[in-house]
Amino acid sequence: MSDRIANAALRSKVMTAEEAVQFVNNGDKVGISGFTGAGYPKAMPEAIAERAKAEHAKGNDYAIELFTGASTADNCDGVMAEADAISFRTPYQSDPVMRNKINAGKIRYADIHLSHLGQMVEEGFFGQMNVAIVEATRITEDGNIVPSSSVGNNVEFLRAAERIIIEVNSWQSEDLEGMHDIWTVPALPNRVAIPINNAGDRIGKTYIEIDTDKVVAVIETDAPDRNAPFKPVDEVSQKIAGNFLDFLEGEVAAGRLSYDGYVMQSGVGNVPNAVMAGLLDSKFENIQAYTEVIQDGMVDLIDAGKMTVASATSFSLSPEYAEKMNAEAKKYRESIILRPQSISNHPEVIRRTGLIATNGLIEADIYGNVNSTNVAGTRMMNGIGGSGDFTRNGYISSFITPSIAKDGAISAIVPFASHIDHTEHDVMVVISEYGYADLRGLAPRARVEKMISIAHPDYRPALQEYYDRATSGDKAFLQTPHDLATAFDFHRNLVEKGSMKG
Amino acid sequence: MSDRIANAALRSKVMTAEEAVQFVNNGDKVGISGFTGAGYPKAMPEAIAERAKAEHAKGNDYAIELFTGASTADNCDGVMAEADAISFRTPYQSDPVMRNKINAGKIRYADIHLSHLGQMVEEGFFGQMNVAIVEATRITEDGNIVPSSSVGNNVEFLRAAERIIIEVNSWQSEDLEGMHDIWTVPALPNRVAIPINNAGDRIGKTYIEIDTDKVVAVIETDAPDRNAPFKPVDEVSQKIAGNFLDFLEGEVAAGRLSYDGYVMQSGVGNVPNAVMAGLLDSKFENIQAYTEVIQDGMVDLIDAGKMTVASATSFSLSPEYAEKMNAEAKKYRESIILRPQSISNHPEVIRRTGLIATNGLIEADIYGNVNSTNVAGTRMMNGIGGSGDFTRNGYISSFITPSIAKDGAISAIVPFASHIDHTEHDVMVVISEYGYADLRGLAPRARVEKMISIAHPDYRPALQEYYDRATSGDKAFLQTPHDLATAFDFHRNLVEKGSMKG
Repeated sequence: MSDRIANAALRSKVMTAEEAVQFVNNGDKVGISGFTGAGYPKAMPEAIAERAKAEHAKGNDYAIELFTGASTADNCDGVMAEADAISFRTPYQSDPVMRNKINAGKIRYADIHLSHLGQMVEEGFFGQMNVAIVEATRITEDGNIVPSSSVGNNVEFLRAAERIIIEVNSWQSEDLEGMHDIWTVPALPNRVAIPINNAGDRIGKTYIEIDTDKVVAVIETDAPDRNAPFKPVDEVSQKIAGNFLDFLEGEVAAGRLSYDGYVMQSGVGNVPNAVMAGLLDSKFENIQAYTEVIQDGMVDLIDAGKMTVASATSFSLSPEYAEKMNAEAKKYRESIILRPQSISNHPEVIRRTGLIATNGLIEADIYGNVNSTNVAGTRMMNGIGGSGDFTRNGYISSFITPSIAKDGAISAIVPFASHIDHTEHDVMVVISEYGYADLRGLAPRARVEKMISIAHPDYRPALQEYYDRATSGDKAFLQTPHDLATAFDFHRNLVEKGSMKG
Repeated sequence: MSDRIANAALRSKVMTAEEAVQFVNNGDKVGISGFTGAGYPKAMPEAIAERAKAEHAKGNDYAIELFTGASTADNCDGVMAEADAISFRTPYQSDPVMRNKINAGKIRYADIHLSHLGQMVEEGFFGQMNVAIVEATRITEDGNIVPSSSVGNNVEFLRAAERIIIEVNSWQSEDLEGMHDIWTVPALPNRVAIPINNAGDRIGKTYIEIDTDKVVAVIETDAPDRNAPFKPVDEVSQKIAGNFLDFLEGEVAAGRLSYDGYVMQSGVGNVPNAVMAGLLDSKFENIQAYTEVIQDGMVDLIDAGKMTVASATSFSLSPEYAEKMNAEAKKYRESIILRPQSISNHPEVIRRTGLIATNGLIEADIYGNVNSTNVAGTRMMNGIGGSGDFTRNGYISSFITPSIAKDGAISAIVPFASHIDHTEHDVMVVISEYGYADLRGLAPRARVEKMISIAHPDYRPALQEYYDRATSGDKAFLQTPHDLATAFDFHRNLVEKGSMKG
C-alpha cells in the first residue's frame, strides 16, 4: 500500500472504486475535484458509469447530479454521460459526449460563474451535497488532503458533503506539496477581507483540512491527467497576438500601463499561447499572472525570467509540459501557486490586482455584447467558465478571437449577439486578426465602426447594411439602434443554410 | 459672505456662476457632483446653459462632456440638455429632456456601472478631465470639502480635474458634517483591501482633501435638492412587496437567512418603498442597508428601530423627508453613512456583506436574462446604474417588477430580452405581483415554467406558445431553446402596433 496515505484511520478505508461506488446512490448530489482536465478522480467515474449501466439493465433508475471545478475528461464526464449516469451538471464542461447530451436535452446543465459555485453549494442553494470525490497527491498524518494538479471547489465540496471518497493518485508528483495555498473566506456573516494584495501572496495552508469521520473510502490510482497537445501557432493566431501586443503597447504609450506592471489573466487555447509567445520577445518584464489556469506559455515565461509568479487554481498543460511539471514541481512551486477557485476567481482579488482580462468568445455584436456560450443562441459549447469573473472585475477586459470560424461559415462579429454572457457595460476591447476595437468610454453608436473594422472583410458589407437599416427611415430611437426584424438573420442563415452568409 | 467658507484663500475666489462659467470651455470634460437628484450643483448648470445659448447664437460651437455620480435634476441635466450644451453624458441619467436628446441621437451616452466610472476617470480612459464642479456643505479651514447630500464620484473628479469649481449650498444642513465617510482605494499598483466588514464600519474622513491651487471659483447657493414625492403605495406594489417578503421568509425557513441578519440593497421607487413598509411589520430585526441611495422607507425603518445602519452614497427622499433629514441630520448621522460611490458600489464590499440585491427591471426573458435599460432594445430609459454592481456581487440577486406596464401594452416577461444588462448567470430571483420565480441552480429549460407563472395572465399563452415553438419539430439544440424568427415578436408588435399583444 502506498506511503502516500499517512493517516492510519484512512488507510483502513482503502478499497477499490467498484467497492466504493456503493456509497454513490441514485439521485445523489456529487461534488468532484477537477478543473480543465487536471486533478479529476480517475477511478470513480468509470465505476459510477458501470453501476449506472448495471442498474439501468435491471430497470432501475440511476443518475447523479454532478458538480465539479470546471471541465474534466473523457474518462470522467465522458464515460458518465455516455452511460446516462448524469441528470444534472454544473458549472463548466467541455467533453463532446457530455455536450451532446446537454444539447439533446437529456442532461440539465446550469452554467454558473466559477467564482460563485462554491459559495452557492456552501449556502445550500442546491440542497444537501451527498458525496465529495476528490483526488489527492497525498493524505497527511493528520488525515488532511494535499490536492493534486488542481484545487477547484474541493474545499467547499469536502465541507458540504455527507460522505467523502478520496482518490490518492501516485502519478501526481509528491513535490506538488507546497504549491497549494488553501484559504477560504469565513462563512456569512463573518466574512473578512482576503489578504492577497499581489498575485504571489501566500496566505493559507498547503493542505485541506477535512472531517475524517466523513471519509467512507480511499482509492489508490496511478493515472495521468487529460493533457491535450496545443496545435502549432498558426498565422491567424499570430496576427491576433500581434494586435493584442499592439494594444498593450498603446496602453503603455498612454500612461495607463507600465512595462513593469502587467498582471495577466488569460483564457486557455492556441491564441492565448500565441500571445504568451509574443510576450517572450516583448519589452514587458516581471509579468504576473492572476488567472485560473497555468498553461504552457506561462511556464515558458517563467523559464525565461519574464514572469515572476503565476497564481491559478489548475494546470492545463500539454503532455510534454505536464511531464516537465511533474519532474520539476519542486522548482516551479517557488513561482506557481494553486488556490481554491473561489479565491483565484474572486471579484475582490481580481479587482485589487488590476489585471488585464483576456478571454475568447463565440461572437460579439456591433455594440460590444459578447456571447461566450451558445452557438446561434441555442447550442451550448462549454459554458461561461471564469470569463465573467475576470471580465467584470478586471482593470481592462479584452476578448481575442479569429474573425471567422468553420471556414468562414461563422462570423465572430454579428448584428445582435444570440446569447449574451458579457454585456456592453463590461466589454472594453475586442481583438481579431484585423486589429483591435477599443470600446472604452464610447456610446453604443460610436462603437459600431470599430467593431465592423475587426470583422472579416467578407462580412463587413452585411454588418454595415444592418446598421444602416437600423438607423434609417423612421427609426425613432437611436441610443442602441436595431432592426429587430433582421437582428438574427446571420444566425438564421447559419441554422437554415449552414452559413451566416446565407 | 457665508461663514461656510472657512478657508481664506478660497474665500477670495467667491464669484457668481455667470463669472465662473468662463472656466468651462467648449469641449471640456466636466465632472460634477450629484446622485439621484441630491447634491448636484445648483448654479453652474444654468450658467453653462446660458453660455451655450449665447455662443450658439453667435454661431460658435459650445458643448461639454458631462460626467456625474448618477442622475441629477431638471435644473441641471435638463437645462443643459435643452440648451444643447452637452455632447456626451455618462454614467446615469433620468431627466426627460436629456433622455429625449439621447434617444434622438443628439447626445452620445455611455451607460457605465456606477462602481466603474471613478476608476476609469482616474486611469485616464476618457483622457484628461478639465473641470470638476462640486457642491459642498462647507469648506473647512484647511480648504477641504464637506460634501452635501451625496458623495458620488466627487473624490475622483476633484483629483483628476485641472480646475475646480465649488458650490457652497447653505440650504444643506451643516449637521451633515460627520455623516460622510471618505476613503479611497490607493491607485494601482498599490491597491489594498477595503477595511469594511460591516455596513456600519467607518474607515475614513468626514471631508474630501483637495489641491486648493486648482480651485478657480467658489459660488454661494441656497437651493433645495430635487426631491420628488413618492406615490402612495398601490395594490400591485403591495402584492409585489408581499411576494418579496414571502421569498425572504422562505430563505429563513431554508436556513439560508436569519431574522437577525438581513443586509439590504434596494433600488429606488414605489415598489421598494412598499417592501420597506412591509418590513416594518415583519419579524426581521437589526436590518442593515449597504446600498447606493437612502430612501424614505429606510428612514422609517431606522425610526422604528428595525434598521441599525444604512450606508449609501446619496439621499433620494421625498420633500417631507428631506426637510426632516435637514432638521435632524445630527441624529441621523449616527445611523446613516454616505460614502464615495466607488465604495458604496464596490464589488469587494458588496460580496463581503452578503447583501440581498433588489432592483427593478424593464423586462426579463423566459430564461432569466434581464433588460434594465433599453425599451424594445433601442430606447434608453435611465441606464444600468448600480444594479449590475449589486446583482453581480450580492449573496442573492432579486428583481421586483409589475408584470405589465402601459396599461398592459408591455409585458415584463418576454421570450427574448431585447437588451441584456444582467445575464442568466447573475439573475437569481424575479418577483412580480403574481409570485416569485426562484431560478437558482436551475438549467435554462427548468426556469421557463417559473418565469411564465409570474407573467400577467394575458401574456402567458403567447409565452408558452413561443417556448413550444422553440422546442418543437426539428429543433436540434435544446440547452437554451429559441425560435430566432419570432424571438422579438413581442417587441415588434410594440413598435409597430403599440402593444406587445399585437
